Amino acid sequence: MRGVEQTEQELSAVEGRSAQKRRAILGAAREVFLESGYASASMDDIAAIAVVSKVTVYKHFADKRTLFIAVVTGAIKEAEESSQSLVGSLATSVDVEKDLRDFARQHIVLVTQPHLVQMRRMIIGEANRFPELARTWHHAGPERGHAKLADQIEQLARRGLLQVADPLLAAQHLNYLILSVPVNEAMFRSRGKPYSRRQLQRYADEAVRVFMAAYERR
Amino acid sequence: MRGVEQTEQELSAVEGRSAQKRRAILGAAREVFLESGYASASMDDIAAIAVVSKVTVYKHFADKRTLFIAVVTGAIKEAEESSQSLVGSLATSVDVEKDLRDFARQHIVLVTQPHLVQMRRMIIGEANRFPELARTWHHAGPERGHAKLADQIEQLARRGLLQVADPLLAAQHLNYLILSVPVNEAMFRSRGKPYSRRQLQRYADEAVRVFMAAYERR
Repeated sequence: MRGVEQTEQELSAVEGRSAQKRRAILGAAREVFLESGYASASMDDIAAIAVVSKVTVYKHFADKRTLFIAVVTGAIKEAEESSQSLVGSLATSVDVEKDLRDFARQHIVLVTQPHLVQMRRMIIGEANRFPELARTWHHAGPERGHAKLADQIEQLARRGLLQVADPLLAAQHLNYLILSVPVNEAMFRSRGKPYSRRQLQRYADEAVRVFMAAYERR
Repeated sequence: MRGVEQTEQELSAVEGRSAQKRRAILGAAREVFLESGYASASMDDIAAIAVVSKVTVYKHFADKRTLFIAVVTGAIKEAEESSQSLVGSLATSVDVEKDLRDFARQHIVLVTQPHLVQMRRMIIGEANRFPELARTWHHAGPERGHAKLADQIEQLARRGLLQVADPLLAAQHLNYLILSVPVNEAMFRSRGKPYSRRQLQRYADEAVRVFMAAYERR
């Protein structure tokens, strides 16, 4: 029995080291992709920064494309998880305007994070050469986000709190009312001054005001 | 006197040929930039497609940057001139909702034209390497567009037809309500099916509905 326990401990230590290496590779890849763009990013650089061998990189990720998709979906997932609790509880809200405002304020801060803005810029720029990557981003990001928000909006409409003919379009309206000004500016002003939290809050609050005026049940 | 007249005729013929060459260069440049991206675009290719010498290209445009800016501002100006009459007459509208809808329907068709979408994608992708080009686009396009629309909205508010605390933000809300869904999708789906005119009309109409709900004076 003692031998088996030891083996299990050893196995879990190997797994731990492997997970650690995987995290290091993902961190290094994110850095290199953001710095060099997808096409110019080198797997050698990524291995060097992660302090692992190139063989180890390829053991975890079959090719650059796979690694890139893991980086992108990881970044989106990270941002999503932070807003998950707020979005998921909208349907049962008893103060829709307040709860939408809380969501909007958090959402705008998350999405305008510099590394996400930069990743977005890069993916748009490469959309012709790498249409699959752009589709992956769009699917994991805006599409899923809109679908989840639409689901909550539909439930609010069923509870008689909103009046919504097309929940998906309503979700898109809300999302783009919140994000469009800072995200679009960020696309074109790569080295612009970042928005203050107060400015972002104002965009969020005004977005919710417009949304409620159009979609609240009267 | 006759000699002078001839000289003038000759001069104007030279000017005509020069203007023609300039147009040919701009057309060729647009094609090459959209095909190759800014960084890879070659002045040799542009001269060849325009059927002029490289010296002629440089006589008209000092460098690739200048040529690119001329292409970009030309494309934006073209789209702007088409919607100019509609935007410019909004302030004196007697049926704001209807006139905004006419504007929105035309605006969305203009801005989602494939060459503009592709130029936008390219400029975003190059915003880190060529921040000046991105600023030029943003200034000539969305910034000017928002300012002009804000001016009309402010006049409508003064006439008591809209209730607007911040005309610029109201203009941005209207613009992004109209454009965000198709333009954002187009950024990430480079080879997606284009929107039907009917779909675009629906985005335009719903944008105006939301805008009026939030900004109409009650």
